[in-house]
Amino acid sequence: MSVLVVGSVAFDSIETPFGARREVVGGAATYFALAASCFAKVQVVGAVGEDFGPEHRAVLERRGIDLLGLERLAGRTFRWSGRYSYDLNSRETLDTQLGVFEKFDPRIPQPYREPRFLFLGNIDPVLQQVKRPELVGCDTMNFWIEGKLEALKRTLAAVDMLVINDSEARELAREPNLVKAAGVIRALGPSTLIVKRGEFGAAAFGGAHPFAVPALLLDSVSDPTGAGDSFAGGLMGYLASRAGDGPVDEAMLRRAIAMGSVLASFTVQSFGVEGLLDLTRERIDERYEEFRRLSHFHDA
Amino acid sequence: MSVLVVGSVAFDSIETPFGARREVVGGAATYFALAASCFAKVQVVGAVGEDFGPEHRAVLERRGIDLLGLERLAGRTFRWSGRYSYDLNSRETLDTQLGVFEKFDPRIPQPYREPRFLFLGNIDPVLQQVKRPELVGCDTMNFWIEGKLEALKRTLAAVDMLVINDSEARELAREPNLVKAAGVIRALGPSTLIVKRGEFGAAAFGGAHPFAVPALLLDSVSDPTGAGDSFAGGLMGYLASRAGDGPVDEAMLRRAIAMGSVLASFTVQSFGVEGLLDLTRERIDERYEEFRRLSHFHDA
Repeated sequence: MSVLVVGSVAFDSIETPFGARREVVGGAATYFALAASCFAKVQVVGAVGEDFGPEHRAVLERRGIDLLGLERLAGRTFRWSGRYSYDLNSRETLDTQLGVFEKFDPRIPQPYREPRFLFLGNIDPVLQQVKRPELVGCDTMNFWIEGKLEALKRTLAAVDMLVINDSEARELAREPNLVKAAGVIRALGPSTLIVKRGEFGAAAFGGAHPFAVPALLLDSVSDPTGAGDSFAGGLMGYLASRAGDGPVDEAMLRRAIAMGSVLASFTVQSFGVEGLLDLTRERIDERYEEFRRLSHFHDA
Repeated sequence: MSVLVVGSVAFDSIETPFGARREVVGGAATYFALAASCFAKVQVVGAVGEDFGPEHRAVLERRGIDLLGLERLAGRTFRWSGRYSYDLNSRETLDTQLGVFEKFDPRIPQPYREPRFLFLGNIDPVLQQVKRPELVGCDTMNFWIEGKLEALKRTLAAVDMLVINDSEARELAREPNLVKAAGVIRALGPSTLIVKRGEFGAAAFGGAHPFAVPALLLDSVSDPTGAGDSFAGGLMGYLASRAGDGPVDEAMLRRAIAMGSVLASFTVQSFGVEGLLDLTRERIDERYEEFRRLSHFHDA
Protein backbone atom coordinates (compact mmCIF):
# COMPACT_ATOMS: atom_id res chain seq x y z
CA MET A 1 0.00 0.00 0.00
CA SER A 2 1.35 3.46 -0.85
CA VAL A 3 1.38 6.84 0.87
CA LEU A 4 1.04 10.13 -0.96
CA VAL A 5 2.67 13.15 0.68
CA VAL A 6 2.21 16.76 -0.39
CA GLY A 7 4.74 19.13 1.10
CA SER A 8 7.99 21.00 0.91
CA VAL A 9 11.26 19.85 -0.58
CA ALA A 10 14.03 22.25 0.33
CA PHE A 11 17.69 22.97 0.72
CA ASP A 12 18.51 23.29 4.41
CA SER A 13 21.52 24.89 6.01
CA ILE A 14 21.90 23.72 9.58
CA GLU A 15 24.20 24.67 12.43
CA THR A 16 24.25 22.77 15.70
CA PRO A 17 26.90 22.68 18.45
CA PHE A 18 28.04 19.40 16.91
CA GLY A 19 28.55 20.49 13.33
CA ALA A 20 26.98 22.10 10.30
CA ARG A 21 25.71 21.28 6.83
CA ARG A 22 25.14 23.69 3.95
CA GLU A 23 22.34 23.39 1.39
CA VAL A 24 21.54 19.74 1.94
CA VAL A 25 18.29 18.21 0.68
CA GLY A 26 15.62 18.65 3.33
CA GLY A 27 12.05 19.89 3.73
CA ALA A 28 9.06 18.30 5.44
CA ALA A 29 8.09 16.06 2.51
CA THR A 30 11.66 14.79 2.15
CA TYR A 31 11.93 13.65 5.78
CA PHE A 32 8.42 12.27 5.67
CA ALA A 33 9.03 10.34 2.44
CA LEU A 34 12.38 8.89 3.52
CA ALA A 35 10.90 7.68 6.82
CA ALA A 36 7.74 6.29 5.23
CA SER A 37 9.77 4.54 2.53
CA CYS A 38 11.06 2.14 5.18
CA PHE A 39 7.58 0.61 5.27
CA ALA A 40 5.66 1.45 2.10
CA LYS A 41 5.77 2.89 -1.40
CA VAL A 42 5.79 6.69 -1.26
CA GLN A 43 4.70 9.27 -3.82
CA VAL A 44 5.73 12.90 -3.43
CA VAL A 45 3.92 15.99 -4.68
CA GLY A 46 6.04 19.09 -4.33
CA ALA A 47 8.03 21.68 -6.22
CA VAL A 48 11.72 22.35 -6.66
CA GLY A 49 13.66 24.90 -8.65
CA GLU A 50 16.13 24.66 -11.51
CA ASP A 51 18.94 24.31 -8.98
CA PHE A 52 17.58 20.92 -7.87
CA GLY A 53 19.67 18.50 -9.89
CA PRO A 54 19.79 14.75 -10.47
CA GLU A 55 22.10 14.30 -7.48
CA HIS A 56 19.40 15.84 -5.28
CA ARG A 57 16.61 13.72 -6.77
CA ALA A 58 18.80 10.69 -6.18
CA VAL A 59 18.56 11.20 -2.39
CA LEU A 60 14.89 10.23 -2.67
CA GLU A 61 15.05 7.91 -5.67
CA ARG A 62 17.62 5.66 -4.05
CA ARG A 63 14.94 4.78 -1.48
CA GLY A 64 12.48 3.93 -4.26
CA ILE A 65 10.40 7.08 -3.75
CA ASP A 66 8.18 8.00 -6.72
CA LEU A 67 8.92 11.57 -7.84
CA LEU A 68 6.41 11.86 -10.67
CA GLY A 69 4.66 14.58 -8.65
CA LEU A 70 7.80 16.56 -7.89
CA GLU A 71 7.53 19.51 -10.28
CA ARG A 72 10.62 21.37 -11.42
CA LEU A 73 9.75 25.05 -11.81
CA ALA A 74 11.61 28.11 -13.06
CA GLY A 75 13.36 29.70 -10.09
CA ARG A 76 15.16 28.56 -6.98
CA THR A 77 14.35 25.76 -4.57
CA PHE A 78 12.93 26.66 -1.12
CA ARG A 79 15.84 27.40 1.23
CA TRP A 80 15.85 27.35 5.01
CA SER A 81 18.70 27.95 7.38
CA GLY A 82 18.74 27.68 11.14
CA ARG A 83 20.94 27.41 14.18
CA TYR A 84 20.33 25.37 17.35
CA SER A 85 21.15 26.33 20.94
CA TYR A 86 23.78 24.37 22.83
CA ASP A 87 21.21 22.02 24.40
CA LEU A 88 19.36 21.65 21.06
CA ASN A 89 16.09 22.68 22.71
CA SER A 90 15.59 25.89 20.82
CA ARG A 91 16.44 27.00 17.34
CA GLU A 92 16.73 30.28 15.54
CA THR A 93 15.69 30.55 11.91
CA LEU A 94 18.44 32.52 10.21
CA ASP A 95 16.86 32.76 6.79
CA THR A 96 13.90 31.53 4.78
CA GLN A 97 13.68 31.92 1.01
CA LEU A 98 10.48 30.41 -0.33
CA GLY A 99 11.65 30.41 -3.96
CA VAL A 100 9.38 28.35 -6.22
CA PHE A 101 7.43 27.19 -3.17
CA GLU A 102 5.88 30.65 -2.78
CA LYS A 103 3.64 30.34 -5.83
CA PHE A 104 3.43 26.56 -5.85
CA ASP A 105 -0.07 25.32 -6.60
CA PRO A 106 0.12 21.60 -6.01
CA ARG A 107 -1.36 19.41 -8.74
CA ILE A 108 -1.90 15.74 -8.13
CA PRO A 109 -0.79 13.68 -11.15
CA GLN A 110 -3.41 11.35 -12.61
CA PRO A 111 -1.84 8.10 -11.29
CA TYR A 112 -1.90 9.48 -7.73
CA ARG A 113 -5.58 10.38 -7.56
CA GLU A 114 -6.86 7.41 -5.62
CA PRO A 115 -4.54 7.40 -2.60
CA ARG A 116 -5.52 5.34 0.41
CA PHE A 117 -3.13 7.21 2.67
CA LEU A 118 -2.58 10.92 2.10
CA PHE A 119 -0.47 13.27 4.17
CA LEU A 120 -0.70 17.05 3.84
CA GLY A 121 2.49 18.62 5.12
CA ASN A 122 2.33 22.36 5.71
CA ILE A 123 0.63 23.15 2.45
CA ASP A 124 -2.71 24.27 1.07
CA PRO A 125 -5.28 21.56 0.67
CA VAL A 126 -5.39 19.39 -2.41
CA LEU A 127 -8.24 17.23 -1.26
CA GLN A 128 -10.57 18.28 -4.07
CA GLN A 129 -8.16 16.67 -6.55
CA VAL A 130 -8.32 13.15 -5.16
CA LYS A 131 -10.83 10.40 -4.47
CA ARG A 132 -11.61 10.33 -0.75
CA PRO A 133 -8.66 8.48 0.84
CA GLU A 134 -9.00 5.95 3.62
CA LEU A 135 -6.93 8.14 5.89
CA VAL A 136 -5.95 11.80 5.51
CA GLY A 137 -3.17 12.97 7.81
CA CYS A 138 -2.13 16.57 8.21
CA ASP A 139 0.72 18.46 9.77
CA THR A 140 0.58 22.14 10.58
CA MET A 141 2.66 24.88 12.10
CA ASN A 142 2.36 28.22 13.78
CA PHE A 143 2.24 29.89 10.38
CA TRP A 144 -1.11 28.25 9.78
CA ILE A 145 -2.55 28.80 13.19
CA GLU A 146 -1.59 32.43 13.32
CA GLY A 147 -1.94 33.40 9.70
CA LYS A 148 -4.71 31.39 8.13
CA LEU A 149 -6.90 30.08 10.88
CA GLU A 150 -10.03 29.95 8.74
CA ALA A 151 -8.27 28.04 5.94
CA LEU A 152 -6.83 25.67 8.52
CA LYS A 153 -10.27 25.02 9.99
CA ARG A 154 -11.69 24.19 6.56
CA THR A 155 -8.86 21.72 5.99
CA LEU A 156 -9.25 20.17 9.43
CA ALA A 157 -12.88 19.35 8.72
CA ALA A 158 -11.62 16.92 6.05
CA VAL A 159 -8.66 15.53 8.00
CA ASP A 160 -8.74 12.21 9.88
CA MET A 161 -5.48 12.52 11.74
CA LEU A 162 -3.80 15.75 12.77
CA VAL A 163 -0.13 15.57 13.80
CA ILE A 164 1.02 18.71 15.58
CA ASN A 165 3.28 19.67 18.39
CA ASP A 166 2.39 20.38 21.96
CA SER A 167 2.45 24.16 21.84
CA GLU A 168 0.57 24.22 18.52
CA ALA A 169 -2.19 22.09 20.03
CA ARG A 170 -2.59 24.43 22.98
CA GLU A 171 -2.49 27.47 20.74
CA LEU A 172 -4.96 26.12 18.19
CA ALA A 173 -7.41 25.17 20.95
CA ARG A 174 -6.65 28.24 23.09
CA GLU A 175 -6.53 25.86 26.04
CA PRO A 176 -3.46 25.10 28.17
CA ASN A 177 -4.65 21.66 29.33
CA LEU A 178 -3.64 19.13 26.68
CA VAL A 179 -6.52 16.72 27.27
CA LYS A 180 -9.06 19.51 26.98
CA ALA A 181 -7.22 20.97 23.97
CA ALA A 182 -7.48 17.57 22.28
CA GLY A 183 -11.24 17.61 22.74
CA VAL A 184 -11.51 21.07 21.18
CA ILE A 185 -9.35 20.11 18.19
CA ARG A 186 -11.10 16.81 17.54
CA ALA A 187 -14.38 18.72 17.45
CA LEU A 188 -12.94 20.65 14.47
CA GLY A 189 -12.69 17.46 12.41
CA PRO A 190 -9.78 15.09 13.00
CA SER A 191 -10.97 11.95 14.76
CA THR A 192 -7.38 11.35 15.84
CA LEU A 193 -5.01 13.96 17.26
CA ILE A 194 -1.35 13.10 17.62
CA VAL A 195 0.72 15.48 19.70
CA LYS A 196 4.47 15.63 19.19
CA ARG A 197 6.35 16.46 22.38
CA GLY A 198 9.94 16.55 21.10
CA GLU A 199 12.39 14.93 23.48
CA PHE A 200 9.43 13.95 25.68
CA GLY A 201 7.75 11.72 23.10
CA ALA A 202 4.21 11.83 21.83
CA ALA A 203 0.59 11.55 22.91
CA ALA A 204 -2.48 10.49 20.96
CA PHE A 205 -6.18 11.09 21.44
CA GLY A 206 -8.97 9.38 19.59
CA GLY A 207 -9.01 5.75 20.60
CA ALA A 208 -10.97 4.32 23.49
CA HIS A 209 -8.10 5.39 25.74
CA PRO A 210 -5.55 8.18 25.40
CA PHE A 211 -2.03 7.05 24.57
CA ALA A 212 1.36 8.47 25.48
CA VAL A 213 4.94 7.38 25.00
CA PRO A 214 8.24 8.95 26.00
CA ALA A 215 10.89 9.44 23.33
CA LEU A 216 13.81 7.08 23.03
CA LEU A 217 16.61 8.14 25.36
CA LEU A 218 19.60 8.84 23.14
CA ASP A 219 23.12 9.47 24.36
CA SER A 220 23.92 11.48 21.29
CA VAL A 221 21.70 13.90 19.38
CA SER A 222 23.33 15.75 16.50
CA ASP A 223 20.53 17.62 14.75
CA PRO A 224 16.80 17.73 15.57
CA THR A 225 15.85 19.01 12.09
CA GLY A 226 13.14 16.88 10.54
CA ALA A 227 12.36 14.85 13.66
CA GLY A 228 8.65 15.66 13.55
CA ASP A 229 8.36 14.97 9.82
CA SER A 230 10.23 11.67 10.21
CA PHE A 231 7.86 10.78 13.03
CA ALA A 232 4.83 11.43 10.82
CA GLY A 233 6.40 9.55 7.91
CA GLY A 234 7.25 6.51 10.00
CA LEU A 235 3.77 6.55 11.46
CA MET A 236 1.90 6.85 8.13
CA GLY A 237 4.26 4.48 6.34
CA TYR A 238 3.74 1.83 8.98
CA LEU A 239 -0.05 2.25 8.81
CA ALA A 240 0.03 1.93 5.01
CA SER A 241 2.14 -1.23 5.29
CA ARG A 242 -0.47 -2.77 7.59
CA ALA A 243 -3.52 -1.59 5.68
CA GLY A 244 -4.08 -5.04 4.18
CA ASP A 245 -4.70 -6.22 7.74
CA GLY A 246 -7.99 -4.31 7.90
CA PRO A 247 -8.97 -0.87 9.15
CA VAL A 248 -6.63 1.15 11.34
CA ASP A 249 -7.47 0.08 14.89
CA GLU A 250 -6.19 1.43 18.16
CA ALA A 251 -3.48 -1.20 18.65
CA MET A 252 -2.18 -0.62 15.12
CA LEU A 253 -2.14 3.14 15.64
CA ARG A 254 -0.18 2.72 18.87
CA ARG A 255 2.44 0.59 17.17
CA ALA A 256 2.57 3.13 14.33
CA ILE A 257 3.27 5.94 16.81
CA ALA A 258 6.05 3.85 18.30
CA MET A 259 7.46 3.30 14.79
CA GLY A 260 7.25 7.05 14.17
CA SER A 261 9.25 7.61 17.36
CA VAL A 262 11.83 5.10 16.19
CA LEU A 263 12.25 6.83 12.83
CA ALA A 264 12.57 10.23 14.52
CA SER A 265 15.28 8.82 16.76
CA PHE A 266 17.36 7.78 13.76
CA THR A 267 16.92 11.22 12.20
CA VAL A 268 18.16 13.21 15.18
CA GLN A 269 21.26 11.07 15.66
CA SER A 270 22.73 12.31 12.38
CA PHE A 271 22.70 15.54 10.40
CA GLY A 272 19.88 16.35 8.01
CA VAL A 273 18.44 13.24 6.38
CA GLU A 274 21.67 11.24 6.76
CA GLY A 275 20.26 8.99 9.48
CA LEU A 276 17.44 7.83 7.22
CA LEU A 277 19.41 6.98 4.09
CA ASP A 278 20.70 3.53 4.88
CA LEU A 279 18.11 2.27 7.33
CA THR A 280 17.15 -1.37 7.18
CA ARG A 281 13.99 -2.93 8.51
CA GLU A 282 16.15 -5.02 10.80
CA ARG A 283 17.67 -1.98 12.51
CA ILE A 284 14.21 -0.42 12.78
CA ASP A 285 12.74 -3.52 14.38
CA GLU A 286 15.65 -3.78 16.81
CA ARG A 287 15.09 -0.22 17.93
CA TYR A 288 11.34 -0.77 18.20
CA GLU A 289 12.12 -3.62 20.58
CA GLU A 290 14.47 -1.32 22.50
CA PHE A 291 11.67 1.23 22.72
CA ARG A 292 9.28 -1.37 24.10
CA ARG A 293 11.89 -2.35 26.72
CA LEU A 294 12.37 1.33 27.54
CA SER A 295 8.77 2.13 28.24
CA HIS A 296 6.87 -0.92 29.44
CA PHE A 297 6.60 -1.50 33.16
CA HIS A 298 4.19 -4.32 33.75
CA ASP A 299 5.14 -7.76 32.45
CA ALA A 300 3.11 -9.76 34.93
CA MET B 1 8.12 -3.00 55.85
CA SER B 2 8.49 0.67 56.84
CA VAL B 3 9.99 3.76 55.23
CA LEU B 4 11.77 6.48 57.19
CA VAL B 5 11.69 9.95 55.69
CA VAL B 6 13.69 12.94 56.88
CA GLY B 7 12.51 16.25 55.49
CA SER B 8 10.46 19.37 55.79
CA VAL B 9 7.00 19.76 57.27
CA ALA B 10 5.61 23.18 56.47
CA PHE B 11 2.67 25.49 56.14
CA ASP B 12 2.10 26.26 52.47
CA SER B 13 0.15 29.12 50.94
CA ILE B 14 -0.69 28.35 47.35
CA GLU B 15 -2.29 30.36 44.55
CA THR B 16 -3.15 28.79 41.23
CA PRO B 17 -5.54 29.99 38.48
CA PHE B 18 -8.06 27.55 39.91
CA GLY B 19 -8.06 28.61 43.54
CA ALA B 20 -5.96 29.24 46.60
CA ARG B 21 -5.21 27.80 50.03
CA ARG B 22 -3.63 29.60 52.98
CA GLU B 23 -1.27 27.98 55.52
CA VAL B 24 -2.22 24.39 54.84
CA VAL B 25 -0.02 21.51 56.01
CA GLY B 26 2.60 20.79 53.35
CA GLY B 27 6.35 20.32 52.95
CA ALA B 28 8.31 17.61 51.17
CA ALA B 29 8.15 15.07 54.02
CA THR B 30 4.39 15.52 54.35
CA TYR B 31 3.66 14.76 50.69
CA PHE B 32 6.18 11.94 50.72
CA ALA B 33 4.74 10.38 53.87
CA LEU B 34 1.11 10.63 52.77
CA ALA B 35 1.90 9.01 49.43
CA ALA B 36 4.10 6.28 50.92
CA SER B 37 1.46 5.54 53.59
CA CYS B 38 -0.74 4.07 50.85
CA PHE B 39 1.67 1.14 50.69
CA ALA B 40 3.76 0.93 53.87
CA LYS B 41 4.27 2.12 57.42
CA VAL B 42 5.97 5.53 57.41
CA GLN B 43 8.08 7.25 60.05
CA VAL B 44 8.80 10.97 59.80
CA VAL B 45 11.80 12.87 61.16
CA GLY B 46 11.30 16.60 60.95
CA ALA B 47 10.67 19.74 62.94
CA VAL B 48 7.67 21.97 63.43
CA GLY B 49 7.07 25.07 65.55
CA GLU B 50 4.75 25.84 68.42
CA ASP B 51 2.09 26.87 65.91
CA PHE B 52 1.80 23.30 64.66
CA GLY B 53 -1.18 21.99 66.62
CA PRO B 54 -2.96 18.67 67.07
CA GLU B 55 -5.22 19.43 64.08
CA HIS B 56 -2.10 19.67 61.91
CA ARG B 57 -0.57 16.47 63.28
CA ALA B 58 -3.89 14.77 62.62
CA VAL B 59 -3.41 15.25 58.85
CA LEU B 60 -0.57 12.74 59.04
CA GLU B 61 -1.77 10.63 61.96
CA ARG B 62 -5.07 9.82 60.28
CA ARG B 63 -3.07 7.93 57.67
CA GLY B 64 -1.27 5.98 60.39
CA ILE B 65 2.01 7.86 59.97
CA ASP B 66 4.39 7.58 62.93
CA LEU B 67 5.33 11.07 64.21
CA LEU B 68 7.68 10.07 67.02
CA GLY B 69 10.47 11.81 65.08
CA LEU B 70 8.56 15.02 64.42
CA GLU B 71 10.11 17.43 66.90
CA ARG B 72 8.18 20.43 68.14
CA LEU B 73 10.61 23.31 68.67
CA ALA B 74 10.31 26.84 70.03
CA GLY B 75 9.49 29.14 67.15
CA ARG B 76 7.40 29.04 64.01
CA THR B 77 6.88 26.28 61.48
CA PHE B 78 8.57 26.57 58.05
CA ARG B 79 6.33 28.63 55.76
CA TRP B 80 6.33 28.72 51.99
CA SER B 81 4.06 30.62 49.67
CA GLY B 82 3.94 30.54 45.89
CA ARG B 83 1.87 31.39 42.87
CA TYR B 84 1.52 29.41 39.63
CA SER B 85 1.25 30.76 36.08
CA TYR B 86 -1.96 30.25 34.13
CA ASP B 87 -0.73 27.06 32.46
CA LEU B 88 0.75 25.78 35.77
CA ASN B 89 4.13 25.28 34.13
CA SER B 90 6.01 27.86 36.14
CA ARG B 91 5.73 29.10 39.66
CA GLU B 92 6.95 32.08 41.56
CA THR B 93 7.96 31.75 45.20
CA LEU B 94 6.37 34.68 47.00
CA ASP B 95 7.85 34.06 50.41
CA THR B 96 9.96 31.55 52.35
CA GLN B 97 10.29 31.67 56.13
CA LEU B 98 12.46 28.83 57.37
CA GLY B 99 11.37 29.24 61.02
CA VAL B 100 12.47 26.30 63.20
CA PHE B 101 13.70 24.48 60.08
CA GLU B 102 16.63 26.89 59.81
CA LYS B 103 18.48 25.48 62.81
CA PHE B 104 16.98 22.02 62.72
CA ASP B 105 19.54 19.32 63.38
CA PRO B 106 17.69 16.10 62.67
CA ARG B 107 18.00 13.39 65.29
CA ILE B 108 16.85 9.89 64.53
CA PRO B 109 14.90 8.44 67.49
CA GLN B 110 16.20 5.14 68.84
CA PRO B 111 13.34 3.00 67.44
CA TYR B 112 14.03 4.32 63.93
CA ARG B 113 17.71 3.48 63.75
CA GLU B 114 17.54 0.33 61.67
CA PRO B 115 15.50 1.49 58.68
CA ARG B 116 15.49 -0.69 55.61
CA PHE B 117 14.20 2.14 53.42
CA LEU B 118 15.38 5.67 54.13
CA PHE B 119 14.56 8.80 52.14
CA LEU B 120 16.45 12.06 52.64
CA GLY B 121 14.34 14.94 51.43
CA ASN B 122 16.15 18.23 51.01
CA ILE B 123 18.01 18.01 54.28
CA ASP B 124 21.48 17.47 55.68
CA PRO B 125 22.56 13.90 55.95
CA VAL B 126 21.65 11.79 58.93
CA LEU B 127 23.25 8.63 57.68
CA GLN B 128 25.77 8.41 60.50
CA GLN B 129 22.89 7.97 62.94
CA VAL B 130 21.46 4.81 61.43
CA LYS B 131 22.46 1.26 60.61
CA ARG B 132 23.14 0.98 56.88
CA PRO B 133 19.71 0.73 55.25
CA GLU B 134 18.91 -1.58 52.38
CA LEU B 135 18.06 1.39 50.21
CA VAL B 136 18.82 5.08 50.72
CA GLY B 137 16.87 7.46 48.51
CA CYS B 138 17.55 11.15 48.23
CA ASP B 139 15.86 14.18 46.76
CA THR B 140 17.65 17.41 46.12
CA MET B 141 17.04 20.84 44.72
CA ASN B 142 18.82 23.74 43.13
CA PHE B 143 19.66 25.06 46.59
CA TRP B 144 21.91 22.07 47.12
CA ILE B 145 23.46 22.06 43.69
CA GLU B 146 24.24 25.73 43.73
CA GLY B 147 24.97 26.31 47.38
CA LYS B 148 26.52 23.21 48.85
CA LEU B 149 27.91 21.15 46.03
CA GLU B 150 30.63 19.55 48.13
CA ALA B 151 28.17 18.53 50.85
CA LEU B 152 25.85 17.15 48.21
CA LYS B 153 28.63 15.09 46.67
CA ARG B 154 29.50 13.60 50.07
CA THR B 155 25.86 12.64 50.57
CA LEU B 156 25.55 11.21 47.08
CA ALA B 157 28.42 8.83 47.72
CA ALA B 158 26.18 7.11 50.31
CA VAL B 159 22.94 7.27 48.33
CA ASP B 160 21.54 4.34 46.35
CA MET B 161 18.76 6.16 44.52
CA LEU B 162 18.72 9.83 43.62
CA VAL B 163 15.37 11.35 42.64
CA ILE B 164 15.76 14.74 40.97
CA ASN B 165 14.18 16.72 38.23
CA ASP B 166 15.34 17.08 34.67
CA SER B 167 16.98 20.47 34.92
CA GLU B 168 18.66 19.56 38.22
CA ALA B 169 20.18 16.47 36.61
CA ARG B 170 21.61 18.49 33.73
CA GLU B 171 22.87 21.16 36.10
CA LEU B 172 24.44 18.75 38.57
CA ALA B 173 26.24 16.92 35.76
CA ARG B 174 26.94 20.07 33.74
CA GLU B 175 25.80 18.11 30.71
CA PRO B 176 22.73 18.88 28.57
CA ASN B 177 22.26 15.32 27.28
CA LEU B 178 20.20 13.42 29.85
CA VAL B 179 21.70 9.99 29.15
CA LYS B 180 25.23 11.34 29.52
CA ALA B 181 24.20 13.36 32.59
CA ALA B 182 22.90 10.15 34.16
CA GLY B 183 26.28 8.52 33.65
CA VAL B 184 28.06 11.43 35.35
CA ILE B 185 25.68 11.43 38.31
CA ARG B 186 25.76 7.68 38.82
CA ALA B 187 29.55 7.91 38.95
CA LEU B 188 29.11 10.16 42.03
CA GLY B 189 27.43 7.35 43.97
CA PRO B 190 23.77 6.56 43.31
CA SER B 191 23.44 3.29 41.41
CA THR B 192 19.98 4.41 40.36
CA LEU B 193 19.04 7.85 39.07
CA ILE B 194 15.38 8.73 38.71
CA VAL B 195 14.62 11.87 36.73
CA LYS B 196 11.33 13.67 37.28
CA ARG B 197 10.05 15.37 34.13
CA GLY B 198 6.88 17.00 35.46
CA GLU B 199 3.96 16.75 33.04
CA PHE B 200 6.19 14.62 30.78
CA GLY B 201 6.66 11.79 33.25
CA ALA B 202 9.87 10.24 34.51
CA ALA B 203 12.99 8.42 33.39
CA ALA B 204 15.24 6.02 35.26
CA PHE B 205 18.82 4.92 34.77
CA GLY B 206 20.55 2.07 36.55
CA GLY B 207 18.93 -1.15 35.41
CA ALA B 208 20.09 -3.21 32.46
CA HIS B 209 18.00 -0.89 30.28
CA PRO B 210 16.98 2.74 30.73
CA PHE B 211 13.33 3.29 31.54
CA ALA B 212 10.93 6.11 30.72
CA VAL B 213 7.24 6.73 31.19
CA PRO B 214 5.00 9.64 30.27
CA ALA B 215 2.83 11.16 32.99
CA LEU B 216 -0.84 10.36 33.29
CA LEU B 217 -2.84 12.63 30.98
CA LEU B 218 -5.22 14.54 33.22
CA ASP B 219 -8.06 16.72 32.05
CA SER B 220 -7.90 18.76 35.22
CA VAL B 221 -4.86 19.86 37.18
CA SER B 222 -5.49 22.14 40.14
CA ASP B 223 -2.18 22.48 41.94
CA PRO B 224 1.22 20.95 41.08
CA THR B 225 2.62 21.55 44.60
CA GLY B 226 4.08 18.36 46.05
CA ALA B 227 3.87 16.31 42.86
CA GLY B 228 7.55 15.36 42.96
CA ASP B 229 7.47 14.48 46.66
CA SER B 230 4.33 12.39 46.16
CA PHE B 231 6.07 10.63 43.29
CA ALA B 232 9.05 9.78 45.51
CA GLY B 233 6.76 8.71 48.35
CA GLY B 234 4.66 6.43 46.18
CA LEU B 235 7.81 4.96 44.67
CA MET B 236 9.58 4.28 48.00
CA GLY B 237 6.39 3.15 49.71
CA TYR B 238 5.69 0.64 46.99
CA LEU B 239 9.26 -0.69 47.14
CA ALA B 240 9.02 -1.08 50.92
CA SER B 241 5.73 -2.94 50.55
CA ARG B 242 7.39 -5.40 48.17
CA ALA B 243 10.62 -5.78 50.09
CA GLY B 244 9.56 -9.16 51.47
CA ASP B 245 9.61 -10.36 47.88
CA GLY B 246 13.40 -10.15 47.73
CA PRO B 247 15.84 -7.46 46.61
CA VAL B 248 14.69 -4.53 44.51
CA ASP B 249 14.99 -5.73 40.94
CA GLU B 250 14.46 -3.84 37.71
CA ALA B 251 10.87 -4.95 37.15
CA MET B 252 9.93 -3.98 40.72
CA LEU B 253 11.59 -0.59 40.33
CA ARG B 254 9.68 0.04 37.09
CA ARG B 255 6.36 -0.75 38.73
CA ALA B 256 7.37 1.47 41.68
CA ILE B 257 8.02 4.39 39.31
CA ALA B 258 4.61 3.82 37.76
CA MET B 259 3.08 3.84 41.26
CA GLY B 260 4.93 7.07 42.03
CA SER B 261 3.44 8.59 38.87
CA VAL B 262 -0.01 7.46 39.95
CA LEU B 263 0.36 9.07 43.38
CA ALA B 264 1.63 12.31 41.84
CA SER B 265 -1.42 12.35 39.56
CA PHE B 266 -3.77 12.26 42.54
CA THR B 267 -1.84 15.07 44.23
CA VAL B 268 -2.03 17.50 41.32
CA GLN B 269 -5.75 17.01 40.79
CA SER B 270 -6.54 18.66 44.13
CA PHE B 271 -5.07 21.46 46.24
CA GLY B 272 -2.20 20.82 48.61
CA VAL B 273 -2.34 17.35 50.12
CA GLU B 274 -6.12 17.03 49.71
CA GLY B 275 -5.86 14.48 46.90
CA LEU B 276 -3.88 12.09 49.08
CA LEU B 277 -6.02 12.10 52.21
CA ASP B 278 -8.73 9.62 51.30
CA LEU B 279 -6.96 7.43 48.79
CA THR B 280 -7.73 3.74 48.80
CA ARG B 281 -5.61 0.98 47.38
CA GLU B 282 -8.47 0.17 45.04
CA ARG B 283 -8.44 3.63 43.44
CA ILE B 284 -4.65 3.49 43.19
CA ASP B 285 -4.72 0.10 41.47
CA GLU B 286 -7.41 1.29 39.05
CA ARG B 287 -5.30 4.24 38.05
CA TYR B 288 -2.19 2.08 37.75
CA GLU B 289 -4.15 -0.04 35.27
CA GLU B 290 -5.20 3.13 33.46
CA PHE B 291 -1.54 4.16 33.30
CA ARG B 292 -0.57 0.81 31.81
CA ARG B 293 -3.30 1.22 29.20
CA LEU B 294 -2.10 4.75 28.50
CA SER B 295 1.49 3.86 27.81
CA HIS B 296 1.81 0.33 26.47
CA PHE B 297 1.84 -0.18 22.74
CA HIS B 298 2.72 -3.75 22.03
CA ASP B 299 0.32 -6.44 23.21
CA ALA B 300 1.23 -9.04 20.60
